Amino acid sequence: MTHPVILYRVSALAKAGTLCFALCTSAVAEADERSPLVIKEQGSVIAGGRVETQPGIFDPYKPALSDGQSYHGDHVYAFYQVPVDARPLPIVMWHGAGQSAKSWETTADGREGFQNIFLRRGFSTWLIDQPRRGDAGRSLVETTIKPVADEQMWFNQFRIGLWPDTFEGSQFPRGPQALEQFFRSMTPNTGPYDIEVVSDGVSALLEKTGPAILFTHSQGGGPGWLTAIKSRHVRAIVAFEPGSSFVFPEGEGPVPIPSAFDTVSAQIVSKEQFEALTRIPILIFYGDNIPDKPVRLPAQDSWRARLEMARLWRDAVNRHGGDVRLIHLPEIGIKGNSHFPFSDMNNIEIADLVSTFLAEKNLD
Amino acid sequence: MTHPVILYRVSALAKAGTLCFALCTSAVAEADERSPLVIKEQGSVIAGGRVETQPGIFDPYKPALSDGQSYHGDHVYAFYQVPVDARPLPIVMWHGAGQSAKSWETTADGREGFQNIFLRRGFSTWLIDQPRRGDAGRSLVETTIKPVADEQMWFNQFRIGLWPDTFEGSQFPRGPQALEQFFRSMTPNTGPYDIEVVSDGVSALLEKTGPAILFTHSQGGGPGWLTAIKSRHVRAIVAFEPGSSFVFPEGEGPVPIPSAFDTVSAQIVSKEQFEALTRIPILIFYGDNIPDKPVRLPAQDSWRARLEMARLWRDAVNRHGGDVRLIHLPEIGIKGNSHFPFSDMNNIEIADLVSTFLAEKNLD
Repeated sequence: MTHPVILYRVSALAKAGTLCFALCTSAVAEADERSPLVIKEQGSVIAGGRVETQPGIFDPYKPALSDGQSYHGDHVYAFYQVPVDARPLPIVMWHGAGQSAKSWETTADGREGFQNIFLRRGFSTWLIDQPRRGDAGRSLVETTIKPVADEQMWFNQFRIGLWPDTFEGSQFPRGPQALEQFFRSMTPNTGPYDIEVVSDGVSALLEKTGPAILFTHSQGGGPGWLTAIKSRHVRAIVAFEPGSSFVFPEGEGPVPIPSAFDTVSAQIVSKEQFEALTRIPILIFYGDNIPDKPVRLPAQDSWRARLEMARLWRDAVNRHGGDVRLIHLPEIGIKGNSHFPFSDMNNIEIADLVSTFLAEKNLD
Repeated sequence: MTHPVILYRVSALAKAGTLCFALCTSAVAEADERSPLVIKEQGSVIAGGRVETQPGIFDPYKPALSDGQSYHGDHVYAFYQVPVDARPLPIVMWHGAGQSAKSWETTADGREGFQNIFLRRGFSTWLIDQPRRGDAGRSLVETTIKPVADEQMWFNQFRIGLWPDTFEGSQFPRGPQALEQFFRSMTPNTGPYDIEVVSDGVSALLEKTGPAILFTHSQGGGPGWLTAIKSRHVRAIVAFEPGSSFVFPEGEGPVPIPSAFDTVSAQIVSKEQFEALTRIPILIFYGDNIPDKPVRLPAQDSWRARLEMARLWRDAVNRHGGDVRLIHLPEIGIKGNSHFPFSDMNNIEIADLVSTFLAEKNLD
């Protein structure tokens, strides 16, 4: 029986000249958006978490009493797809604060996100809802969710622009419909955010995926570093705008960096733990419209401080023999990216940079 | 270019003799689990919901203040997949209480769920997280989520068995690992459950899908009826164990049915609203281990009362010229189903019954 994926690859190669630049020599034969996705296997799985059981004996005649009953929580949820002829390493995609697996799916303006883009490039994808978020909602710690109006704050914080104006030349999807899809893609924590709980969850998931590449976004960056420390299966990390919790070895934590938003501090780990981060290639992206000197506006200044800390972190890991590259996109001529380069209008161009990195590191 | 899906169909037809029984004459050419899924398009979208904006003016220097800020919530989230050569009507799959889109994905014991099964049968699938659940988590009404131990209650309520014993001959996935996956697939409301909010959300989604078949489960049954009243796009409903909110026309509501768990009451709508339910074919399934006379055990007796109300509802709709069929599975010789026939071990057999119904009604 003829293998259909081959037909698509031929078709994609014919168009390769217009689709990719540096990649054309790196055997990334990418099917375009009009080609079907040929999925060998797909499904969802839950990993990690804990269980608590109340003392006493369950009485089936009084089922509303908790006596003797259990509660499973703090696990991670993942939806996975394996394309036909998949490359060896799957990609685990980890959302940021207030986000979910949706981050990597369809963009706010209806284009393909990194889920489809990397499936087309032959990678298995695992999209997660981290513990206490989305479909992994059962938390072992109580929380109250209040509808506190906050979207103009996020508009500025995510560097879409300065409300109500989008930055000139912004790559963030345009128009009120896209903005509405974006706002509605936010989803709350269903328990307190806990960096140990979420990194434990993803580490447990990696026992199911085996060796994998980790993509992290924003708040996912910090627990992403911890996951590479906790799990032997992290083979590389691509971190989009990691926002906090940069881990430094004892004695090498830099002075905290204050900003008009908050103060960015190092998270200290042991030298042995830190070593794990020197053994894998790491690529970090930051987008545009980050000031290079302190400014008064909190949303702006927070990223100035974060980018500064990320550079100190890159230098620390590399000083210990690591392999961290930090790409501040405007410095290589790619302008206008928001806090979401992977779903911005130029996300194919960003994906190409990621593919080049993975090819260079023999991870594809 | 040769169309690959044709190759799979040929392959599937060759195996049809072992795969299906009554269906073999109904043009349901099903690819088996080993064949790739050929997906023309996939992605996610958000529909419906409301937005609230606080009075005042947003101050970017005080972003923690809500003044002048907005909050979008109460929308529905859907992940959709369109196979190559899709049948005309997509299937929208709607979870029950404490569940999410995960209901229709991989089963607790790792088999394919209705998402893959119906994709393989050529249907586009739309799996939702209803408003205030899962990835559609932003709610316009506050809630507190407490980790109240309740799993033994659910074990009984979902008719897996009588804790800790599984019913003899049960079709619910076996073993502690499956039970753990099942418990961890539960996810809480992120706002108060509101039948109007969730049916408004799904009705808005149907404006994006166009005419569609609705699969509902349990708590989703009630708002499913309302959605068929609110939206012109519902072409059929397959309801798995609808649990409450059966809608009757004014003057025809039956006497409430008390049980050891609660009292099942009719929800009254106008005659015009009720008429909508007489214009589409409806198939209702109930599984096994439902007593036919009152019993003391709440978890058991609740389903006796619900099945009784469902039969009264079927008769009411059919009396008005409707087309409701209720299948109590043990009555047709299919034994052991829990509250989740679509993910029980015999879910292919259940899917075959659904396919036969869709073929009979020319909905495929």
